[in-house]
Amino acid sequence: MNELRKDPTRGQWVLIRPEPPAGDGSECPYCPGAEAASGPEIAAYRKDGSAPNTPGWMVRVVAERDPYFRIEDELVREGVGMFDMITPRGASELIVESPRHDDTLATIDLEQLEDVLWLYRDRLLDLKRDSQIRDILISRRHKKPGVARHHPYSRVTAIPIVFDEKRRELREVREYYQYKRRCLYCDLLRQEITARERVVRLTKSFACIVPYAARGPLETWILPRRHQSLFEDAPRHEYASLARLLGDILRRMNKALDFPPYNLLIHSAPFSEHAADYYHWHVEIIPKLTKVAGFEWATGFYLNPTAPEEAAAVLRDARP
Amino acid sequence: MNELRKDPTRGQWVLIRPEPPAGDGSECPYCPGAEAASGPEIAAYRKDGSAPNTPGWMVRVVAERDPYFRIEDELVREGVGMFDMITPRGASELIVESPRHDDTLATIDLEQLEDVLWLYRDRLLDLKRDSQIRDILISRRHKKPGVARHHPYSRVTAIPIVFDEKRRELREVREYYQYKRRCLYCDLLRQEITARERVVRLTKSFACIVPYAARGPLETWILPRRHQSLFEDAPRHEYASLARLLGDILRRMNKALDFPPYNLLIHSAPFSEHAADYYHWHVEIIPKLTKVAGFEWATGFYLNPTAPEEAAAVLRDARP
Repeated sequence: MNELRKDPTRGQWVLIRPEPPAGDGSECPYCPGAEAASGPEIAAYRKDGSAPNTPGWMVRVVAERDPYFRIEDELVREGVGMFDMITPRGASELIVESPRHDDTLATIDLEQLEDVLWLYRDRLLDLKRDSQIRDILISRRHKKPGVARHHPYSRVTAIPIVFDEKRRELREVREYYQYKRRCLYCDLLRQEITARERVVRLTKSFACIVPYAARGPLETWILPRRHQSLFEDAPRHEYASLARLLGDILRRMNKALDFPPYNLLIHSAPFSEHAADYYHWHVEIIPKLTKVAGFEWATGFYLNPTAPEEAAAVLRDARP
Repeated sequence: MNELRKDPTRGQWVLIRPEPPAGDGSECPYCPGAEAASGPEIAAYRKDGSAPNTPGWMVRVVAERDPYFRIEDELVREGVGMFDMITPRGASELIVESPRHDDTLATIDLEQLEDVLWLYRDRLLDLKRDSQIRDILISRRHKKPGVARHHPYSRVTAIPIVFDEKRRELREVREYYQYKRRCLYCDLLRQEITARERVVRLTKSFACIVPYAARGPLETWILPRRHQSLFEDAPRHEYASLARLLGDILRRMNKALDFPPYNLLIHSAPFSEHAADYYHWHVEIIPKLTKVAGFEWATGFYLNPTAPEEAAAVLRDARP
């Protein structure tokens, strides 16, 4: 059984699918030379003109082996009595960020990180052409050093509905826009840049802030200072600028928090809604320092023991 | 700093407060004889007429020692530029469910469990009289045997806003009601009782089901079969009936899943909204078998490897 089911009392989707068998983890399928083990290559950047599915790549995209969402599946939307079901048609891809097994986004060089961001863009542009895909999320889960069994990678998840978290954001910023005719994120940036207390770094194109209601210690956001709803529409030089800032912030986090595990998300406007005026793409980085406790789980409240203003000061001072 | 802050881009509240110092855990403050250590007694059921804050109680409510929400605080709602802040005025109470240190809701006798439910009701009725409290959640976190350092208890959390999870439910069921003029939960119950495949048990007053889009293996809900928006308004005999069913379900879970940790929540209509026609109180029991993974955290999707129909069959067959 592989079904997306919607709970009508919460309006929330759940993916029901059997647990895939765990790999034996003995060899890394993402290292150069193991290309046959990692699944078919969807795209790669190669400087040496080497052939697909052979070594020589700098960054590489493969289909996930037990994908959450499959592009081959037929999209079926079905009513089950009063309930809603959709088949999980979409894409689950992995972006291998470096040929080196021990690299992280904080250690790869600037050009490599820029290539990773550029490949994010490529995948978004390519998958958007599929009219049954309504939303795409790029996410990256960085585990504590020594915990990850293999090679760092980012995940691309393309789905036939809008991601719940983004639906939440869209609802709020749409309402704000309808009332004020201004982008909420633009207003927020203006206020944060004036106040300064939650700003970590400002560059010509980007602002890095700790949000007012950060969900955990040192959650940070990176936003383009100019209004832009789509990550994939940024001009080329901005990816270089973002790579520089992102690498710096991750190294600051490593310094301040002793190499924390973190989640990184790229929130870009979904294709199913004309959100160009009110959505503002951004990167969210959430260090995983506190466990999600029962209280949070039960209530939907996050508990954050660190004041966002303190967190921003810590990151400002943590020069790598 | 103790502040409830709202993230304007998600409409979600975060409680910012320093981590309280952990207790040394050497002695259980909830055992009879340790009454002085557990905080002032708010209420207790005593069969022997013993005095407050002395042994002799059967169930007992105390104020939490480092409360998330304080009844003594002044309620302040403040705009911080474009942001919203509220002081965490409310109540954080613990309901100690038995004098015996090793009891659980699955092992205490029927009468004791009925007393616990009755005390839930007492606390709801008492706290509702405070006009600054808008919502109350009763939650219970059951850890794996051997992991909990002390005495099982339930938690009562009363807050000046509506809990996020409940706000979600209210939005969906209100919309359904506006369209159909019927309670969504009542319709859902009718469908489940006809289909049977996700029903675990039916009694005269209650239905226990595995929801269509269960967020994890063996998530179960208990709902009154008759429309009722408030847990605290149920007639006396229904608490006895609920105690019987709840004890049975928890013992089935223990049998089927080898004593799993779980969260139990009582969702009752908030006081801040006249939801009598469309909200339907219920108990949610969510065994914690799978960790919330990065994917779920990032996307808001839950992944459930067990089909709800199978889960219901397992619980139906697990006769304690």
